[in-house]
Amino acid sequence: MGGADGHAFRRRPGARQGHAGPQPGEQLRAGAGDRQPVPGHLLHHRRAPRLRRRLPGEVDIVNPLEALLRPRSVAVVGASADPTKTGGRPVGYLLRHGFAGDVWPVNPRATEIAGLPCYRDVASLPGAPDVGIVLVGPERAEAAVRDLAARGCQAAIVLAGGYGETGEAGAEKQSALKRAAGPMRLLGPNTIGVVNLTDRIVLSATGALEFPALPPGGLSVVSQSGGILGALLSRGAAAGIGFAKLVATGNEGDLEVAEVLDALVDDPATTAIALYLEGLRNPGRFRAAARRAAAAGKPVVAFKVGRSEAGALAAISHTGAMAGADRMYDAFFAGLGVIRAERFAELLEVPAALALGRRAAGFRVAVLTSTGGAGALVADAVGLAGGTLPAPDAAVREKLAALLGEAPVGNPVDVTLAGLQPDLFRGAIRTLLDSDGYDQLVVVVGSSALAQPDLVADAMLEARGHSVKPVIAYVSPHAPHIAAGLNARGVPASTTPEGIAAILAALARPVPALPESQPVPALPSLPSGRLNEAESKALFAHFGIQGAREVAATTPEAAQAAAAGLGDRLVVKLLARDLAHKSDIGGVVLGVTPDRVAAVGATLLARLPGAEGLLVQEQVSGGIEMILGIVRDPHLGSAVLLGAGGTAAEVFGDTQLRMLPLTRADAEAMVRGLKVARVLAGFRGAPPADVPALVDAVLAFSRMGEALGDRLLEAEINPLFVLPAGQGVRAADGLAVLA
Amino acid sequence: MGGADGHAFRRRPGARQGHAGPQPGEQLRAGAGDRQPVPGHLLHHRRAPRLRRRLPGEVDIVNPLEALLRPRSVAVVGASADPTKTGGRPVGYLLRHGFAGDVWPVNPRATEIAGLPCYRDVASLPGAPDVGIVLVGPERAEAAVRDLAARGCQAAIVLAGGYGETGEAGAEKQSALKRAAGPMRLLGPNTIGVVNLTDRIVLSATGALEFPALPPGGLSVVSQSGGILGALLSRGAAAGIGFAKLVATGNEGDLEVAEVLDALVDDPATTAIALYLEGLRNPGRFRAAARRAAAAGKPVVAFKVGRSEAGALAAISHTGAMAGADRMYDAFFAGLGVIRAERFAELLEVPAALALGRRAAGFRVAVLTSTGGAGALVADAVGLAGGTLPAPDAAVREKLAALLGEAPVGNPVDVTLAGLQPDLFRGAIRTLLDSDGYDQLVVVVGSSALAQPDLVADAMLEARGHSVKPVIAYVSPHAPHIAAGLNARGVPASTTPEGIAAILAALARPVPALPESQPVPALPSLPSGRLNEAESKALFAHFGIQGAREVAATTPEAAQAAAAGLGDRLVVKLLARDLAHKSDIGGVVLGVTPDRVAAVGATLLARLPGAEGLLVQEQVSGGIEMILGIVRDPHLGSAVLLGAGGTAAEVFGDTQLRMLPLTRADAEAMVRGLKVARVLAGFRGAPPADVPALVDAVLAFSRMGEALGDRLLEAEINPLFVLPAGQGVRAADGLAVLA
Repeated sequence: MGGADGHAFRRRPGARQGHAGPQPGEQLRAGAGDRQPVPGHLLHHRRAPRLRRRLPGEVDIVNPLEALLRPRSVAVVGASADPTKTGGRPVGYLLRHGFAGDVWPVNPRATEIAGLPCYRDVASLPGAPDVGIVLVGPERAEAAVRDLAARGCQAAIVLAGGYGETGEAGAEKQSALKRAAGPMRLLGPNTIGVVNLTDRIVLSATGALEFPALPPGGLSVVSQSGGILGALLSRGAAAGIGFAKLVATGNEGDLEVAEVLDALVDDPATTAIALYLEGLRNPGRFRAAARRAAAAGKPVVAFKVGRSEAGALAAISHTGAMAGADRMYDAFFAGLGVIRAERFAELLEVPAALALGRRAAGFRVAVLTSTGGAGALVADAVGLAGGTLPAPDAAVREKLAALLGEAPVGNPVDVTLAGLQPDLFRGAIRTLLDSDGYDQLVVVVGSSALAQPDLVADAMLEARGHSVKPVIAYVSPHAPHIAAGLNARGVPASTTPEGIAAILAALARPVPALPESQPVPALPSLPSGRLNEAESKALFAHFGIQGAREVAATTPEAAQAAAAGLGDRLVVKLLARDLAHKSDIGGVVLGVTPDRVAAVGATLLARLPGAEGLLVQEQVSGGIEMILGIVRDPHLGSAVLLGAGGTAAEVFGDTQLRMLPLTRADAEAMVRGLKVARVLAGFRGAPPADVPALVDAVLAFSRMGEALGDRLLEAEINPLFVLPAGQGVRAADGLAVLA
Repeated sequence: MGGADGHAFRRRPGARQGHAGPQPGEQLRAGAGDRQPVPGHLLHHRRAPRLRRRLPGEVDIVNPLEALLRPRSVAVVGASADPTKTGGRPVGYLLRHGFAGDVWPVNPRATEIAGLPCYRDVASLPGAPDVGIVLVGPERAEAAVRDLAARGCQAAIVLAGGYGETGEAGAEKQSALKRAAGPMRLLGPNTIGVVNLTDRIVLSATGALEFPALPPGGLSVVSQSGGILGALLSRGAAAGIGFAKLVATGNEGDLEVAEVLDALVDDPATTAIALYLEGLRNPGRFRAAARRAAAAGKPVVAFKVGRSEAGALAAISHTGAMAGADRMYDAFFAGLGVIRAERFAELLEVPAALALGRRAAGFRVAVLTSTGGAGALVADAVGLAGGTLPAPDAAVREKLAALLGEAPVGNPVDVTLAGLQPDLFRGAIRTLLDSDGYDQLVVVVGSSALAQPDLVADAMLEARGHSVKPVIAYVSPHAPHIAAGLNARGVPASTTPEGIAAILAALARPVPALPESQPVPALPSLPSGRLNEAESKALFAHFGIQGAREVAATTPEAAQAAAAGLGDRLVVKLLARDLAHKSDIGGVVLGVTPDRVAAVGATLLARLPGAEGLLVQEQVSGGIEMILGIVRDPHLGSAVLLGAGGTAAEVFGDTQLRMLPLTRADAEAMVRGLKVARVLAGFRGAPPADVPALVDAVLAFSRMGEALGDRLLEAEINPLFVLPAGQGVRAADGLAVLA
């Protein structure tokens, strides 16, 4: 297991291993002294370990993902000697961006490319390359991949498109490519490759790399689209945002976003991760990687398209219909502490700010401005995002008055009239940062900064040394150099008020405490298929959810006899496991007096001759109706759904959805997040409802979901009555479907 | 009334008039030949009329707003000879941007500024200036304004801050400034002035004017913040967006946004108007100006801050509390056809696209892309904004297959694999534009355009000649020159998917048909103050809203006698005009049988000894409960509120709000916009409700609001039962408050 060779990635059990011995013709690696220094003004990532010579006979066991992100040798199959062609770019980019390892162009029609010897085929390479970039089209890529695998290459990058994204024939071609790779890992096809800026290793042909300055930074990006990765790279570079690693997984013929995410958790240069997603192939693997990222304190921000597509869930009950696939993704990300970007620009701005490492204790924001309008814009956006802008307290007002000659009117603090003098500006920044009343500070860069760009910028940079609180810049006029300069020097800057609000919200977000699965209680023996109402509620009761008192009976007469003691007003229902919506066929009668049970029961049974029997129930009154459910997405897993009951959940969409497992804090947040929480708290003088009992019920459903795992296809209590404080909850109707 | 002097503005009755005779020392005006040509490549505004000599003895009647937007002479009070100082900028900007009229610097300490003679004071000026720019600080501005007014100046621009925005003392100073202006109009204080790019007249000191290229265009901007105007100007110029006129009204010590908006309606160069608002001083004047803009086919887009502040309405009923001031602004804008920008960037992008003049017949969008990810981004955003992306029909698929060698899989239409050949790209654009299935086309500019920027751009420009449908560009990589070039050449381009969606939505918006007030029916004689329930419902019935059958009585016995014929189940209520929420004190009893009316009535009267009596009512059943109200904002006017009844309106926020007057289409849209519309349509097999009758009721409330005007402070029906189709509505409870 020697020869880790300076790669800083954690070696995981079960990680795939590359070629196991020294290869013929193995070259000397570039030593540390050959490398140009990484620009030191940027951020607080540790410098990546240097490459060193591989000793003859040294056993070379490398994780293919390590090889992909930090190869020591790269074969470029289909390299062109013409640097203006796409096929000419990768060798040029490797050299220009300072790759210190070996570059082996492969092209039967050239002997030298960019001053390097060119090999006629993969078999002739002087060694087994860590990575092979395949530049040839889809008609020749399969052979190139097969050759690379045979040569002992660790990972191949296939840039060509025309595979799975084009339909069935393409998908078959993609499977063939994967088969040709054998044990070698594959990135792509239809990818733009890998850009590692912290180690200056560029494995790509994208035109975005023509961008003159590509400073390294703490933000890593994984994208399922090469075009999006290129856009993020060029936009980020223009905005002064430094990147660590950028990887496009493309069609994910083999390597998928979750595996790259997992590898980035172990990359010391990566301090935050942005993900562009179109769908997750393996949610379980993603979950594990995201949990590791959370544990490592590396925030993950995801932008996922598909928010406007019709839902993909096919559950029969309301619950499923209401959840919708995209809401399941919301719940899935939320449960993993992954921040979901709402606007595309947030996918850069938010993780770039998080990558700088500072966090805020809360969302109380001071805004310092030299232009009233822009201050108002920012304040408005912050308010919409849930932040507050407390007015300066007496101490702050006093200090600012002494400094500026007059006390500020409110927050935003407008310093226009004091004039833009560096000392005053610095003093105002310090005063606001020192105040216990604020968690974060936004400084507005107005048009005056066009003439004196350093005045505001220098004061903000200085403030970073003065306080650990985040300081963010809103750049009001068109001044891309100012925004980029601030970002590059570690002050998050945005040109949109919405971006400012999103950054502040993310910095104020508590580090997620991800719940662990709990030990599972012993389970009763359960049949498969749809349980009837009585069986469903018995199952729920096993996990601690109290049902309305009830008795099942097979005949009207037995029902009448059983009704004694259930109260003055009863509910009589048909008991039938195949009846999803009893009330739709008039299978539920409320307000039945005990003497009428037999008559009502006979009428009901006449409506559905195949019914199993009758259920006689106490009629619960004085409670607030809720709906509680378990929704299983066959792809993403199970979630608890809680909502206002009756038609409100469906019509008004007042529901909350969280993936299993839940903590008590999660369950409480679900209740709080409902609009109907106002009603539960005691609306218009009504007594407050038993919210702790409701939280217990939510947790009980979560435990049940965990205990039954894949067996529980669906469960629902509707209505679940929440009685006044101290009186608990009652499940009045229930349904469960088991695999 | 001669001497309109080429000003193109409509002269309105009652418009204020300037000095009425020739002034001593009046100078010759610049003739047409002196003017440099306006760059001709931009947009389709008509060239503004040329200035001409004013003839001796000619009576000079000028609308001060005309003078402000297109002055022939400008006095610059406090001009500095140092062009690097703020006070030195305006003279420099006037000359540099090509002002063809007279520039009169005023400064007692200079004899010449920028080659022009400098005057020692305003009294010494060679004539009455059309406009005076006041550059001196607040301590001397009042005297300068007084001097300008005395000299016969039409309008003064006061740049200095330190007035109303700083508190009470500042507000007093501002009033003094207004008094000093006398009949002269005032722009500001605390403004950055006026920038007229179509006539190359710059009356400002803002650093944003240092921007090298400021092309004219059809978009005019009015901003209540100078800083925001400067930001919009510099951002727009960088994005290739051409402006007509930009005016900052600042503190609005005199001229306010509505008056400038009104003047811009008459500006032939202005084809769309953007407004940055913090609040409307005179909503009536704004309403009139916005209606004129709508009639003139000039779209108005407004961004108003204050969305996150607590509501400012103080109505006593739920209705008022639910409406909230910002929602009233929403309703106010919607009623005038003013588009409200949600994100700040939309305030530029959306009206700039509208300014180009094209409109779409709908929101069915084709997306053509050479990069799949960016196409997905755009599609997702369009879907979220309510647009659709229909798949290509057979004819389109066939044409595209012939062109590209393979049929596209869907929409977005991805042409990556066909390669970016100009002819293919042009052909694909034409095919999509020619299809009846699409109203608009988005072309994605991918990173391939970085190498070949003209390929995509030229094809889009050519497409504009091929079809009248809008063609919009989404620029995916960082390529500001491409986006700016497209915007400047008349193809709206955005760098955010959200911006694309907002532009498409605005272009698809039908031109608003603004309702006119209707003749008012004769009114019954009405008391002032709060009407009791019976009186309120009688008033509503006068306008055609049927109430539940009911009888008022003063004693329990009379109530019992009156109850005959009202049905088997009755509602008995306390009748008391000062009781806002009867049910809160148990003043409403449902389900009373006719024989129990007296007993129940006696109990109720015992609860509130001061009650006026009892109301006995048929108990309406089988209807859907709604709430219908009139909310009066003391500032913005009256709106109709419609919502789901019971607690749903308040708890779930399912309400719609529209300002008076309403058209039938408005009322129908209100119903459609509610979530509870699903229930009205017949939920879960229930019969559909009488929606036409509900629409009639909404219109009846609108007519009532118009008829009563300012007298109607508040009105509410809660619940309003909507019975099954054909059976109408019943007002079951009602409240009206009259001034």
